[in-house]
Amino acid sequence: MNEAQKNRLTISIFGQQYTIVGKASPNYIRMISGYVDEKMREIAKSNQRLDSTKIAVLTAVNIADEYFRLKQEYDELLKLIEDEE
Amino acid sequence: MNEAQKNRLTISIFGQQYTIVGKASPNYIRMISGYVDEKMREIAKSNQRLDSTKIAVLTAVNIADEYFRLKQEYDELLKLIEDEE
Repeated sequence: MNEAQKNRLTISIFGQQYTIVGKASPNYIRMISGYVDEKMREIAKSNQRLDSTKIAVLTAVNIADEYFRLKQEYDELLKLIEDEE
Repeated sequence: MNEAQKNRLTISIFGQQYTIVGKASPNYIRMISGYVDEKMREIAKSNQRLDSTKIAVLTAVNIADEYFRLKQEYDELLKLIEDEE
């Protein structure tokens, strides 16, 4: 990929600045960053003794859980289509 | 949900211990924790100046990206099925 095709964006998550570089659109990058920020704030709210690292790790575990649940649904849907053909 | 139906598991991610409580199986919890641990180590390797919090936040952003990409594929697949009916 050409360097010129990449977007560079500075976003804020849980009060810290991050520079994200990638070919995704700025809107998409803002959307996923906002998603992570929101999840971190939810976890921080219900576990007030956790430090930022633990909040971020538990957020990652939480989103990985959502990913694998969706992956299972996706695979089942795909199997359904293949069985029909 | 009954408290007795929940599993409580202590897992290690990026050198720190976490207690995960939920109805998911211990194997599933270990799998998603291992996934997060592996991603964190990859990001740490390619960005050696980042602290643990930033590594964890970028891991969460990374997994959220995978989640939303899969979500889009899933929605397209679902639309395909609905259009056929």
